[in-house]
Amino acid sequence: MRARGRAIVATRASADGATTRVMVNGVSGKMGHATACGVVKRAGFELVPYALTKRATAATTDVLGTEVRGVDVGEEDAGETLERAKREYPGFIVVDYTQPDSVNSNAALYVKHGVPFVMGTTGGDRERMLREVKESGNYAVIAPQMGKQVVAFQAAMKLMAEQFPGAFEGYTLTVTESHQSSKKDTSGTAKAIVASFNDLGCGFDLNDIELVRDVESQTGKMGVPEEHLLGHAFHTYRLTSADGTVSFEFQHNVCGRSIYAEGTVDAVGFLKRKVDAKDPKTLYDMIDVLKEGAMGEWVK
Amino acid sequence: MRARGRAIVATRASADGATTRVMVNGVSGKMGHATACGVVKRAGFELVPYALTKRATAATTDVLGTEVRGVDVGEEDAGETLERAKREYPGFIVVDYTQPDSVNSNAALYVKHGVPFVMGTTGGDRERMLREVKESGNYAVIAPQMGKQVVAFQAAMKLMAEQFPGAFEGYTLTVTESHQSSKKDTSGTAKAIVASFNDLGCGFDLNDIELVRDVESQTGKMGVPEEHLLGHAFHTYRLTSADGTVSFEFQHNVCGRSIYAEGTVDAVGFLKRKVDAKDPKTLYDMIDVLKEGAMGEWVK
Repeated sequence: MRARGRAIVATRASADGATTRVMVNGVSGKMGHATACGVVKRAGFELVPYALTKRATAATTDVLGTEVRGVDVGEEDAGETLERAKREYPGFIVVDYTQPDSVNSNAALYVKHGVPFVMGTTGGDRERMLREVKESGNYAVIAPQMGKQVVAFQAAMKLMAEQFPGAFEGYTLTVTESHQSSKKDTSGTAKAIVASFNDLGCGFDLNDIELVRDVESQTGKMGVPEEHLLGHAFHTYRLTSADGTVSFEFQHNVCGRSIYAEGTVDAVGFLKRKVDAKDPKTLYDMIDVLKEGAMGEWVK
Repeated sequence: MRARGRAIVATRASADGATTRVMVNGVSGKMGHATACGVVKRAGFELVPYALTKRATAATTDVLGTEVRGVDVGEEDAGETLERAKREYPGFIVVDYTQPDSVNSNAALYVKHGVPFVMGTTGGDRERMLREVKESGNYAVIAPQMGKQVVAFQAAMKLMAEQFPGAFEGYTLTVTESHQSSKKDTSGTAKAIVASFNDLGCGFDLNDIELVRDVESQTGKMGVPEEHLLGHAFHTYRLTSADGTVSFEFQHNVCGRSIYAEGTVDAVGFLKRKVDAKDPKTLYDMIDVLKEGAMGEWVK
């Protein structure tokens, strides 16, 4: 079934000669660069050689051989750059991995110029963005977490809690998460998953999530590879029955950025198909992308 | 919400003075005995002092002070015993933890005498039993796995696979399960969960499930406590992304029988409420019990 689904998509793509063109704003940053590399590597995808950037020194970024020219969004020609890209790369889709303080203004810019976009940048006034984008009818995928498999696991725990409330009543929960030491706050993913465990009956206080930020515990206790100390997201949830005879443990351990970059490119492919199909629904999140099924690998 | 639900049930139970009476067939066996103890310990539950047994020497079993007299099902008075219990302990519910070769004949006996039952015994001709019980309109909970939380986890993985097919495409799965050395076949729960992971895109061969049955690996690698070597069910599933940067691990580790005994008593309480409410649906499984929400502890 999966193989068949993939063949259909591939045929459709080649039949109308459609290439999914992608502009990555924030390409000089780490997530933007990783996503741009994912675009270049994915068959049927093409990287647009312009990118809006906030840096006054709008430099050129090399993405696996594709030179992407940065255009300062502060300059008057930011909108003009989008219009020019629309002429030269019809049907292109934007990926935004910029900064929290640009989220709202960038989304407004994409809406103004009618450009479909995938917002991977977190922060900003989310409620306002979601409302404005929805009202505009502009196509967009907006999600705070682009790691498809992490989103799937988080949704599965939510489904379990909705279907079987109180199933883990009497169980004790412990939660440990490790991230690069530059991350000061508690993992949002951990908080969301704890909410589901509480619906399952655990009665856990969010303040009891153990934050691991020191190198020794990370490499020792958590098993984070040394080369990923500066970029990782490790989570462990442990449920133990009142009498101690039963335990459940769930771990999701992410090193580096490839899971997010892959998920973002999947979201772009998903959005392209929705735009092409003129789907009446225009605003999506990663659950929608996941429900569509496997995106295929298509690595060049 | 949970607290309120529990209060309502408790009030209802005391208002009409209803006690949930339970006959445990197979009470001299390990699961039967553990369940009978669970019945005695649970507030609002009463153990019927008769039990059908296959042993010619129908002995008496002590269950935390309650003497349960065994009555040979081979004798002509097996049905008479059920009728006598119906007179003396009106509305009682049977729990069956006997032997695979008694499953079908016992179910037929309960149906014949109109006794609601929870079938915890595995094996037998399941399809035939399910069909016959359903057609009879006799109330029953029939489930191969009574560990509520294990069933909930298994169902959550199934829900994830149904909602997000192919989400883990490209991931490699490894599965390890440890059980007491007397268990020769592969864990049925592991097989069911692997089916969901395959729908998620893992392409795992059931023959690759690693069976741990030797004491050294059990105490060392799997961490099974020595006192539970003769009765445990430990499962580990590990998913790793193609590039090795992402891993998910799921464990459910059960020692002894209390999780199954507790789940069985929960199923009895559930079935009692369905009988009392004259629910038009009469045949249930543990998913139905779980959907009803927390059963409460009510330990005396």
